[in-house]
Amino acid sequence: MAIQPKLDIDVLFAELAALAQISEGEPPVVTRVVFTDADLRARAYVKGLCADAGLEVREDAVGNTFARWTGSEAELPPIGTGSHIDAIPNAGSYDGTVGVLGGLEAIRSLQRAGFRPRRSIELVTFTAEEPTRFGIGCLGSRMMGHVLMPTAALALRDKEGNGLDELRSHAGFSGALESVAVPAGRFHQFVELHIEQGPLLEQEGIDLGLVTAIAAPASLRILIEGEGGHAGGKLMPGRKDALAAAAELILALEAAARSTGAIDTVATVGVCEVFPGAVNSIPSRVRLETDIRDIDGPRRDGVLDALKTACADVAKRRGVKITTELVNADPPTACDAQILAGLEASAIEARRSYKRMVARAYHDSSFVACIAPVAMLFIPCRGGVSHRPDEYASPEWIAGGVDVLARTLARLSG
Amino acid sequence: MAIQPKLDIDVLFAELAALAQISEGEPPVVTRVVFTDADLRARAYVKGLCADAGLEVREDAVGNTFARWTGSEAELPPIGTGSHIDAIPNAGSYDGTVGVLGGLEAIRSLQRAGFRPRRSIELVTFTAEEPTRFGIGCLGSRMMGHVLMPTAALALRDKEGNGLDELRSHAGFSGALESVAVPAGRFHQFVELHIEQGPLLEQEGIDLGLVTAIAAPASLRILIEGEGGHAGGKLMPGRKDALAAAAELILALEAAARSTGAIDTVATVGVCEVFPGAVNSIPSRVRLETDIRDIDGPRRDGVLDALKTACADVAKRRGVKITTELVNADPPTACDAQILAGLEASAIEARRSYKRMVARAYHDSSFVACIAPVAMLFIPCRGGVSHRPDEYASPEWIAGGVDVLARTLARLSG
Repeated sequence: MAIQPKLDIDVLFAELAALAQISEGEPPVVTRVVFTDADLRARAYVKGLCADAGLEVREDAVGNTFARWTGSEAELPPIGTGSHIDAIPNAGSYDGTVGVLGGLEAIRSLQRAGFRPRRSIELVTFTAEEPTRFGIGCLGSRMMGHVLMPTAALALRDKEGNGLDELRSHAGFSGALESVAVPAGRFHQFVELHIEQGPLLEQEGIDLGLVTAIAAPASLRILIEGEGGHAGGKLMPGRKDALAAAAELILALEAAARSTGAIDTVATVGVCEVFPGAVNSIPSRVRLETDIRDIDGPRRDGVLDALKTACADVAKRRGVKITTELVNADPPTACDAQILAGLEASAIEARRSYKRMVARAYHDSSFVACIAPVAMLFIPCRGGVSHRPDEYASPEWIAGGVDVLARTLARLSG
Repeated sequence: MAIQPKLDIDVLFAELAALAQISEGEPPVVTRVVFTDADLRARAYVKGLCADAGLEVREDAVGNTFARWTGSEAELPPIGTGSHIDAIPNAGSYDGTVGVLGGLEAIRSLQRAGFRPRRSIELVTFTAEEPTRFGIGCLGSRMMGHVLMPTAALALRDKEGNGLDELRSHAGFSGALESVAVPAGRFHQFVELHIEQGPLLEQEGIDLGLVTAIAAPASLRILIEGEGGHAGGKLMPGRKDALAAAAELILALEAAARSTGAIDTVATVGVCEVFPGAVNSIPSRVRLETDIRDIDGPRRDGVLDALKTACADVAKRRGVKITTELVNADPPTACDAQILAGLEASAIEARRSYKRMVARAYHDSSFVACIAPVAMLFIPCRGGVSHRPDEYASPEWIAGGVDVLARTLARLSG
């Protein structure tokens, strides 16, 4: 006889609303950058709720937070679930938080139903999934998964020049950063509930997305150094205009991403900084930041190579100096078939419609995948909108996700 | 018998050095933005020197300063000379100042030689030739020349939101702004001495440039509104990437300027601001500022039209919204044949080498041209460098320019 989780969606929705009030911005704007006062107050709020649910709360040296519901065989590696509660400036209320507070409600719904897990279930709140402060996303899970090494983490600074070590100490987290990385096997399996951040589920009227693969970005930083000068005084033939060179690269990257033949390839130039940036000055220097993603690693790296080739070609043809720095090239993640089977069985049991799909944004699960089998469960979000104050997931959509997550946790931990 | 001006180049060079010390930056950096304390102290220094030379000093409502050496027929319209003493941030010591202090030394050298002008000679220091504070260049001469109307001038604000009216009052300039515009005929002729701000004279080892035409810029501000979104979540076919659209316009403008068949056509995109400007966000909005110049008005406007056509084409093809604003489209200036003949005769008389050339940067003379015949006299500057602390013109180069300017003033006013 299958477990019937006893959800209290009103309580969960009230908790999501309360969490959204903890913001550096004026509600409905959610701005909750890691290690700011808002982040620390939000952490305290969530830890309080976890304690109220009888979970045992522990934090690591960088602030990743683990709330454990101890199973009857406490020595077995636990089933993990969770996400993040930090938010970029001017964000909304559901990105990440649905996986944390929804994960907690999944646990409570199983408690109310009288379920007792065999394996422990651990709710994880990852530190700094958003790259806002340190320029690198998934800080906490990246360190857990051995992808970001402690020495590299110590070199991270925010725009004001504050180092990670100083900021985490000030936020109350201590201990060797080496201890953040966990061994493979630390979790038996991990499953993350998240809003889709895309429009497909809502458009097709489907309750749930079972994520089979998580695309991962490569990011190439490009510095173009040309020759400045007066916009009137320098004739066209002698110019080494860094912005004109940048324009070629922007279009070359777009063309490369469009020509792989796969819908899953995307590429973006999100940052284009021009120096000196005056109307009557020829740009002498331009910095581009690019983002290339695919669920297929070699195909993504092919686009990256095409961009590098364009850099060499443009540099030669225009007489400018172009240097590139590979900021990251994270591996795409294939989700675990057994967890996906558990999600599917749970969705059928709960009579929720679902489809298999690809996660195009990367998530903490991308890095947890380095130490445990993972999968993700998506719920719809209105208009595919995310990272904006009008981000929205209905109580009905959230209830569907939490219900199926709870059933899956019961199944995996049973 | 030709007048032999009695130059004191040591005094002039010491005065240029003293003026360069009056800066908001640490010497050798010259930063002297209009109506700042440094600008006001520099004005006081120059006015003191003019008074010492027996000139009669007067200021208009926006701070344009006129120092008159009264001629024997004082009722005749005077011969004007002069330039500006304001400087962009991080500038050098010779841009503009050579025309003001060099103009003063030209007058003094004629006084020392016992010359007495028939027409008065008036040394003008124009307010805010540089666009730093108000975003528009040649503020003072533009108003004198009826190109910038008082109502439009009153709408000008600096980045802190301070209006022109408030700032000029605070700097001690009062009276109706309507009184700044002067009637045609106010000057009989006007000649401006200036460093070339380009490399040609130095490269060719020529003492002087006789400027036959001054190119003038048109500036089109372009706002591209696309659709933002997550760099991972939004597939390529549905994108309306504002930066990719901008890249096409940058290259279209470059191509249009290069294809007029004239070396005198130049075009630049100096400003490219991207919103939101995050590596993982598709740019939703881009603002471009463009600068198009030529000595031929219709040819320049042809490039402007080509840019507008590209805007319409890109907007349609990419589904983005593009709006344009013509910030200015100033008329190119043809210099006066009679003044040029005077400059040429004086250069020959002084045994200085010269060539006829085009001014590619615009100058106060561009706007004085609306009310009087004008010409310009260029001297070399090292490496063509300007708007930088290492801007340099040798005493020898400056002496050549001042000598020929003095002879020309004598010729025109005699």
